[in-house]
Amino acid sequence: MAKYCFGVDIGGTTVKIGLFSEAEELIHSFEIVTRKDEGGSLILSDIAAAVKQTMEEKGIVLEDLTGIGLGVPGPVCEDGTVLKCVNLGWGIFNVADEVKKLTGIENVKVGNDANVAALGEMWKGGGVGYENMVMMTLGTGVGGGIIINGKILAGSKGAAGEIGHLTVNSEEEDTCGCGKRGCLEQFASATGIVREANRLLFKSDRPSKLRDIQYLSAKAIFDAAKEGDVLANELVEQLGRYLGLACSHIAAVVDPQAFVIGGGVSKAGTILTDLIKKYYESNVMFALKGKEFKLATLGNDAGMYGCARMVLER
Amino acid sequence: MAKYCFGVDIGGTTVKIGLFSEAEELIHSFEIVTRKDEGGSLILSDIAAAVKQTMEEKGIVLEDLTGIGLGVPGPVCEDGTVLKCVNLGWGIFNVADEVKKLTGIENVKVGNDANVAALGEMWKGGGVGYENMVMMTLGTGVGGGIIINGKILAGSKGAAGEIGHLTVNSEEEDTCGCGKRGCLEQFASATGIVREANRLLFKSDRPSKLRDIQYLSAKAIFDAAKEGDVLANELVEQLGRYLGLACSHIAAVVDPQAFVIGGGVSKAGTILTDLIKKYYESNVMFALKGKEFKLATLGNDAGMYGCARMVLER
Repeated sequence: MAKYCFGVDIGGTTVKIGLFSEAEELIHSFEIVTRKDEGGSLILSDIAAAVKQTMEEKGIVLEDLTGIGLGVPGPVCEDGTVLKCVNLGWGIFNVADEVKKLTGIENVKVGNDANVAALGEMWKGGGVGYENMVMMTLGTGVGGGIIINGKILAGSKGAAGEIGHLTVNSEEEDTCGCGKRGCLEQFASATGIVREANRLLFKSDRPSKLRDIQYLSAKAIFDAAKEGDVLANELVEQLGRYLGLACSHIAAVVDPQAFVIGGGVSKAGTILTDLIKKYYESNVMFALKGKEFKLATLGNDAGMYGCARMVLER
Repeated sequence: MAKYCFGVDIGGTTVKIGLFSEAEELIHSFEIVTRKDEGGSLILSDIAAAVKQTMEEKGIVLEDLTGIGLGVPGPVCEDGTVLKCVNLGWGIFNVADEVKKLTGIENVKVGNDANVAALGEMWKGGGVGYENMVMMTLGTGVGGGIIINGKILAGSKGAAGEIGHLTVNSEEEDTCGCGKRGCLEQFASATGIVREANRLLFKSDRPSKLRDIQYLSAKAIFDAAKEGDVLANELVEQLGRYLGLACSHIAAVVDPQAFVIGGGVSKAGTILTDLIKKYYESNVMFALKGKEFKLATLGNDAGMYGCARMVLER
């Protein structure tokens, strides 16, 4: 009887591999380096080798496996076809077929990294209890994952949940990494928050603790805000305004039960979710009011969990 | 063998009832008045009586029916529970259960009117060929329906696709019917377009053909724009800008293949879809570019078609 499954989260630097038990618990996890040379063609065979070795060590045979789920940093269609993963050097090919060939495992599922993180949080993290939820990851960039009836919404070209590129400020003149202007990511990513802080500090001579900090960070800004720094508080309010507005857009489209906020910026805690909720409520019609705003709890393991959950889908 | 099905679109004034054949064609349709007295409690029994009479006239027995689908003007959960249909005087109850009781038909599906219109357009209208599409209805208000993998996305409280209440202008000071400000509906509904025209005309003395028209309409504004009226063209551009922005928000969440534009305002034709596309493209990241923008083709019958399609879902 099938007892185990693998969850494999492929990042630009490392691959996180997790082995899950029959009881659906993570029982073993480790990382390998993401070898990006040769157009990333070694990545999947490295993973296959690591998986096989783990199976041998644990005395697991193919028949013991429910399947293997993989998360990749780029758009993925429902059938496992990736449409360029720039960070890995990958072009367009079917990852599921390739992994099937390399490992002999029949049940292979592939998802976008932000989407599998959302699924992981739904399963074992901040989103437990919600089958319709949206995860927002505020890290170096802003990622998103939409879960509908317990499943990932991939979109027609694997780009559903690309909420970091929702336009939230039509007046913005700087260009986002995606090529357009005014994206949520330009204001709400860790780097975006610091950019906005530097802008505001430069614009006037108003006093602020932030002026004494050599390397500004989202954390430093939140800390200063908590200590009552007026300028830092303006920055934090602006962040809440943009995120609340973005969540209102998302809700008007998919009407979820809850939003789960993750990524490094979310370490600020409930001050952040409270702020997002405040601006969310002022931007939605009555039928969409009263959603839950939760913090993610799985950290960098969310993707691994979500990958496993994909193959356990009931 | 099941041969026929009914599609019933319940509006605030009339109920449109359609009988569909085994070949999935509309073979008979008629309207009855929506009796809103007694808290709307007569509406479903009126429909049941009309359906039974049609069955008798056509010599159809219960076993010949695949089912009956109903569209209602308000939020509906997937199980057929309505959460207040203000226009009908309805509170919270399960419409599917009630119709089952009244008609004896086992397979009863219920959807929101804008959502079933979207499904209808996907099945037999402007959205043919797209299993992932979004319909936008620009009428007295602005409605929306999201279709994912050929099915309606209802949302956790039946409010998915409420895209008329996407905030598109945070500076707006007038209040929308929904209670908040800056909703798409305030700018892109038939009434919203006229409101914006009157605002612009009032703001200056600039010459415009629109000044000679006693009762402005969206049609008159589009006609004037086509004839080269500068002010009318500004209004039309603004409309395209708001709609393109709204479509970009929707795409970043669900990544559809196509947008289908319906409702009275869409009679303007491809001038409208071309404009929306132009502003859409400037507001989306690369992965979301190149969506199709189509005009709806079923008019007021879209809901009836979509209702039938719900019970034929494969």
